[in-house]
Amino acid sequence: MGLDQSVKPHERLAAHLDGGMQEVNTLIRERMASKHAPRIPEVTAHLVEAGGKRLRPMLVLAAADLCGYQGPWHIHLAATVEFIHTATLLHDDVVDESAQRRGKPTANLLWDNQSSVLVGDYLFARAFQLMVEPGNLRVLSILSNAAATIAEGEVLQLSAAQDLKTDESVYLQVVRGKTAALFSAATEAGGEISGADAAQVKALFDYGDALGIAFQIVDDLLDYWGDAGTTGKNIGDDFRERKLTLPVIKAVAKADPEERAFWQRTIEKGKQADGDLEEALRLLRKHDVLEATRKEALSWSNKAKSALETLPNHLVRDMLSDLADYVVARVS
Amino acid sequence: MGLDQSVKPHERLAAHLDGGMQEVNTLIRERMASKHAPRIPEVTAHLVEAGGKRLRPMLVLAAADLCGYQGPWHIHLAATVEFIHTATLLHDDVVDESAQRRGKPTANLLWDNQSSVLVGDYLFARAFQLMVEPGNLRVLSILSNAAATIAEGEVLQLSAAQDLKTDESVYLQVVRGKTAALFSAATEAGGEISGADAAQVKALFDYGDALGIAFQIVDDLLDYWGDAGTTGKNIGDDFRERKLTLPVIKAVAKADPEERAFWQRTIEKGKQADGDLEEALRLLRKHDVLEATRKEALSWSNKAKSALETLPNHLVRDMLSDLADYVVARVS
Repeated sequence: MGLDQSVKPHERLAAHLDGGMQEVNTLIRERMASKHAPRIPEVTAHLVEAGGKRLRPMLVLAAADLCGYQGPWHIHLAATVEFIHTATLLHDDVVDESAQRRGKPTANLLWDNQSSVLVGDYLFARAFQLMVEPGNLRVLSILSNAAATIAEGEVLQLSAAQDLKTDESVYLQVVRGKTAALFSAATEAGGEISGADAAQVKALFDYGDALGIAFQIVDDLLDYWGDAGTTGKNIGDDFRERKLTLPVIKAVAKADPEERAFWQRTIEKGKQADGDLEEALRLLRKHDVLEATRKEALSWSNKAKSALETLPNHLVRDMLSDLADYVVARVS
Repeated sequence: MGLDQSVKPHERLAAHLDGGMQEVNTLIRERMASKHAPRIPEVTAHLVEAGGKRLRPMLVLAAADLCGYQGPWHIHLAATVEFIHTATLLHDDVVDESAQRRGKPTANLLWDNQSSVLVGDYLFARAFQLMVEPGNLRVLSILSNAAATIAEGEVLQLSAAQDLKTDESVYLQVVRGKTAALFSAATEAGGEISGADAAQVKALFDYGDALGIAFQIVDDLLDYWGDAGTTGKNIGDDFRERKLTLPVIKAVAKADPEERAFWQRTIEKGKQADGDLEEALRLLRKHDVLEATRKEALSWSNKAKSALETLPNHLVRDMLSDLADYVVARVS
């Protein structure tokens, strides 16, 4: 701490890693081009240039910086995780039939589902080309395992999303897949490419894993808590899309028969009427599950910070610790 | 070629490589499983067990056998190319909104587009895990480049398919992407994992490339030539789906203004009426483009056989040569 708290931790990280992030952006632009298929850069530019915090590539650079890496390959790995992330977004928007992301129309709306599916595949393939180039087999193993965990989590979410039998352990698997796997692969790969020892690489993995879980729990919590003005999310989107996220899972676990019937109707059967969102919010308050969910997010944020303690004292270590506070700041 | 000609070349290859192919099938079944998401093996089993000739994994094993490979890793690479192929089929059926493949309902029809997109992603990721395990960076480079070429070809096809400006060179790029890239990666990777010299690896690449192009041209030709009973394809499917394949590209190049208007209406604008398929077939016959397309397929088949000539004398080399004859046999 002791740093200027008016600047957000990811902005401080971005400033500290600015040179590297510029190289990452250049490499991303180079590699998302396609000689033969002009549709590709159109679609990817829409997403890649759309802003976003570039959190995942920054985590690669931060881990490498923290481990004193001097080589050039962290740039490739950072671009790799951003490509995997972007490919996942393209496919998610098709699966969710989303019309908006970050306040802008999605690629599946601007072009078509076909372009989103195939350009997503292209970005996956480009990600694998990028990750092969450093020639580090342990890094390849980390990143290809993460890709499988992500895809498995997405499929699991498909079957778990509207099933009231989904419990907190399944939720955690889904969250590890859809969010934490790429965070932890980013920090782990950044450590591994630096030749950090096994304990440090493990600590970096643990940090990314816990940070990602905290991040996703907060995201799911804000869907019943925040307001669109400050969070960019509309209250109740997940409810309307019948997504069984942690607050609802906790409420279902405490539901009496009448409440259970309410969740079955609204989430499992998707038969929603006016006033249902208000009733859902009332049940979440009644069982105090928003507070319990909030505590869980804080606990994962603390796990992330604990993982950092075994790592050497370093400016970036402090920034990463602040980042773990920051992802839960909206509910702290 | 002195062998029993009543047994098809790919069946002779399959018999010769039987032990290896059984290992490939076992590995495929192992790796398509998922502890967490039971939807995955349901969807993949539907496709992976559906039969198909397993041509691509067989090409990996054939190339390795031809190069005298003694190690275990060709099995992984064979499973890799089958997973990439299966993932591509899942995504293709979503993109094409197909209802049938190999005479059975497609996964997107049996489950939903979401499952097809996400399970396809899972298979891609599993393919990358598999290809990392042998620890051979040149093989990784071959296979990740092929994945990018495939995806690029698919996107290119999307914009080129209904555009009368698409010429034979664009068609060839699309065909290299959608078909030949995986054939050539299969044979090249089989040679590379065996430690074959650069000239042999190049010859194996050239064989797979030409074989794949011949295979796809014949497939496109049969859409205007064969009958469903012998080819499994309905005459005119590509026409109805407004796909600009080689026969039509050649006919468009020779079209007078009136004929050009016909192609614009039916392919570009997709305004088709009764009798249009018959008119299309009449124009293809008028300009003799089916014969020209057939000759092109035979020429690529010959290129494939020529590429084999620099390779050592070997039973498998003869089988591969027969295979190059076989893929064009339906139009010879």
